[in-house]
Amino acid sequence: MTDLTAQLADLAAAVGEADLLTGPDSMEPYRRDWAKDPSVGMPCAVLRARSVDQVVAAMRWAAETGTPVVPRGAGSGLSGGSSAVDGALTISLDRMTGIEIDVPTRTARVEPGALNIDVKRAAAAHGLWYPPDPSSYEICSIGGNLATNAGGLCCVKYGVTTDYVLGLDVVLADGRLLRLGGRQVKDVAGLSLMKLFVGSEGTLGVIVGATLRLVPALPPAATLVASFPTVRAAADAVVAIGAALRASMMELMDNASINAVEDFRSMGLDRSAGALLVAQSDSPGQARTAEIEAMAAACATHGATEVFTTDDADEGELFCAARRAAFPAIEMRGSLLLEDVGVAVPLLPRLLDGIAEIAQRQGVDIPVVAHAGDGNTHPIIVYDASDADSGARDRTAFDEVMALAISLDGTITGEHGVGRLKKSALPAQVGEHVMAVSRAIKAALDPQGLLNPGAVL
Amino acid sequence: MTDLTAQLADLAAAVGEADLLTGPDSMEPYRRDWAKDPSVGMPCAVLRARSVDQVVAAMRWAAETGTPVVPRGAGSGLSGGSSAVDGALTISLDRMTGIEIDVPTRTARVEPGALNIDVKRAAAAHGLWYPPDPSSYEICSIGGNLATNAGGLCCVKYGVTTDYVLGLDVVLADGRLLRLGGRQVKDVAGLSLMKLFVGSEGTLGVIVGATLRLVPALPPAATLVASFPTVRAAADAVVAIGAALRASMMELMDNASINAVEDFRSMGLDRSAGALLVAQSDSPGQARTAEIEAMAAACATHGATEVFTTDDADEGELFCAARRAAFPAIEMRGSLLLEDVGVAVPLLPRLLDGIAEIAQRQGVDIPVVAHAGDGNTHPIIVYDASDADSGARDRTAFDEVMALAISLDGTITGEHGVGRLKKSALPAQVGEHVMAVSRAIKAALDPQGLLNPGAVL
Repeated sequence: MTDLTAQLADLAAAVGEADLLTGPDSMEPYRRDWAKDPSVGMPCAVLRARSVDQVVAAMRWAAETGTPVVPRGAGSGLSGGSSAVDGALTISLDRMTGIEIDVPTRTARVEPGALNIDVKRAAAAHGLWYPPDPSSYEICSIGGNLATNAGGLCCVKYGVTTDYVLGLDVVLADGRLLRLGGRQVKDVAGLSLMKLFVGSEGTLGVIVGATLRLVPALPPAATLVASFPTVRAAADAVVAIGAALRASMMELMDNASINAVEDFRSMGLDRSAGALLVAQSDSPGQARTAEIEAMAAACATHGATEVFTTDDADEGELFCAARRAAFPAIEMRGSLLLEDVGVAVPLLPRLLDGIAEIAQRQGVDIPVVAHAGDGNTHPIIVYDASDADSGARDRTAFDEVMALAISLDGTITGEHGVGRLKKSALPAQVGEHVMAVSRAIKAALDPQGLLNPGAVL
Repeated sequence: MTDLTAQLADLAAAVGEADLLTGPDSMEPYRRDWAKDPSVGMPCAVLRARSVDQVVAAMRWAAETGTPVVPRGAGSGLSGGSSAVDGALTISLDRMTGIEIDVPTRTARVEPGALNIDVKRAAAAHGLWYPPDPSSYEICSIGGNLATNAGGLCCVKYGVTTDYVLGLDVVLADGRLLRLGGRQVKDVAGLSLMKLFVGSEGTLGVIVGATLRLVPALPPAATLVASFPTVRAAADAVVAIGAALRASMMELMDNASINAVEDFRSMGLDRSAGALLVAQSDSPGQARTAEIEAMAAACATHGATEVFTTDDADEGELFCAARRAAFPAIEMRGSLLLEDVGVAVPLLPRLLDGIAEIAQRQGVDIPVVAHAGDGNTHPIIVYDASDADSGARDRTAFDEVMALAISLDGTITGEHGVGRLKKSALPAQVGEHVMAVSRAIKAALDPQGLLNPGAVL
């Protein structure tokens, strides 16, 4: 037997054969995430873990054999964060889907493979709500959400994943199980390790459990949809609204994304609009009406050509669906590179003007949807995968969009994570000292460099 | 000249003599924080820094000479986090008080010595609000708030300091200046270093600047005050309310703290009540009324003997002032050891029963005020500093209260920080693996162990 065969036999003995995949065909579905990185490697094995003990045993085996490990949730990441690495062990948490709601403490105890939507459903059954809502919430895992500090449409008012983490269980690079936090809402005992692991994209440990904070369920939202002649006008309205109230959703679509959605499924959006705002208020009672009216007035003041509002939750949901349809709609048009750049909200017009300029200069299409209320945008670079030149221009455009965001003192990633696709731009954004400190912390926690090598740093 | 004299001459040359204190009398005010730890050391010098450059120069000097450094804000900490260390350099940030409000981005750029109340005032001048409100907000510094991840009364609805940090500038143990984050609200580029430094209590770096997130100012709150025969009844009301709505304040006072306040300044509180709840709703319009009514109903359901509500902001403020008066009121009665233990809200009755049992067994008074809405309590151990036996019983009670919180799966500190006073209990709460990981991260960032030695770890 080769060394690898012997080592895999040891691994199978440690975790059980039943959950270990080693054949190329069986491992194929676990190689890529939604970034569909063509350069993904081939794992030595895929463990579909059912228990914390298996993850611990697998990590110990990895440490002893010096085998890299790639943690994986639902594989819906957009940055290559769970792309397989040649010869590494992929640990998929997809089978660990447990969810327990504790009503008196308003917490959810979850396993990392539980889907975001299932956590929401479980909470809703008790009149509670887990707010973070990435657009992929129906198919993404909580573990992945935690690893990337996922955001979503409601974050403009309700914050992001890290704001809801009360407890976290992490298996470290040497197999130690770290239990952080608990069920209390406020806890400053010791260093803020929990908040270090959230967003660490599998590079510091494998998340095997979490305690999430829930809030009381809210009344249904009222929705506003406004058309503007330009993105600048829409962004100015967003700034004005943000000074006065906390919308529960504030999304923007540019002309290109509006048209992509209308091509995909006619939803009655105004194809001639320079930009569309889809906003919501979930304040109670009269306050909701007042906030919608205030938003409508701000839109009118900033040149909206049309403003539509509705109290009807289902009707409002149609417009949210239109916004969420942007990604699958644009996917119909070719291969995609999805950006996640963010800037301070008042700089949105400059960012989007710059993206349009890059698109024109590189000869690529870059429709944009944005969580305008927090300045986080998703320019979606469309290219023809069968055309090598198109692919090169698209990659150049991808890098230029990130450089543009950095030049506006923004971020290359507001919620998706650096993964593998964006790491080349990270040093330019954060600088050499931050890179050095990050590497020092990584080295302290993972001296062999086994955890998700090639991601982030 | 001795080595020290030569070294201090080098320091004076690096930072300027004008801001460097070296005489015992001039350094005396910078030796203690509000924990009034009698075992504080004597610094070798105190730098009252005016600029980031001075802090950088001082840290470089400290690294070269192997001199420990104690960062200090306003010195209002309650855990000995800025207690002077023999022969260390205390760097006081009290002179760095700059505050700039940027309205379009809804951010405040602040220096670490700026007082929390001054940040609030500056924001309010522009119709904006910086929520975190520790009870000491009128005299505590933002730098101290950041170092401890300070909480406050509004946190039950609005979160804690770390939820408001968009950017952070930190001087590391070797003098490197780390610039983290920016003005964008969502940013997951790289490791969550910013959130690691917040709450690190001066052990990982010296905070020299921050960008804080502001929110639109809110309408005035309505207030509810309810008397209960027992703490348990009040805590049950808190759980019931929390399942239905987000109060903007939910504070509890026990019989001992009520009476201490009434002894201090008659405010008309019910001296016979087992517990008092002081709660607020700042929802808009009719929703505020509805929430107050819902809270009142829940109080009545859970045995409140009296419920009083008011829409008048000033009248409401009087009751908040009564709650905030607890600490100075109890200070009139002797020397204090202030606890900050927290548990999941439904466990409040068990925690408070346990505290009462410790008080009786140790023969000490332990009045309790609590941020009941998030389970964070402040038992205040009163003792006679001139009586050695009283001091010993009080220290035993202090340790037992922390052990009690740990036995209820809670925390030894919800918002004040571990500092020096609580570090003996930290390993029992977090366990050996968390301690080891914390030390590894500390060692990675501060290999010489210069930053705030003796605090936290």
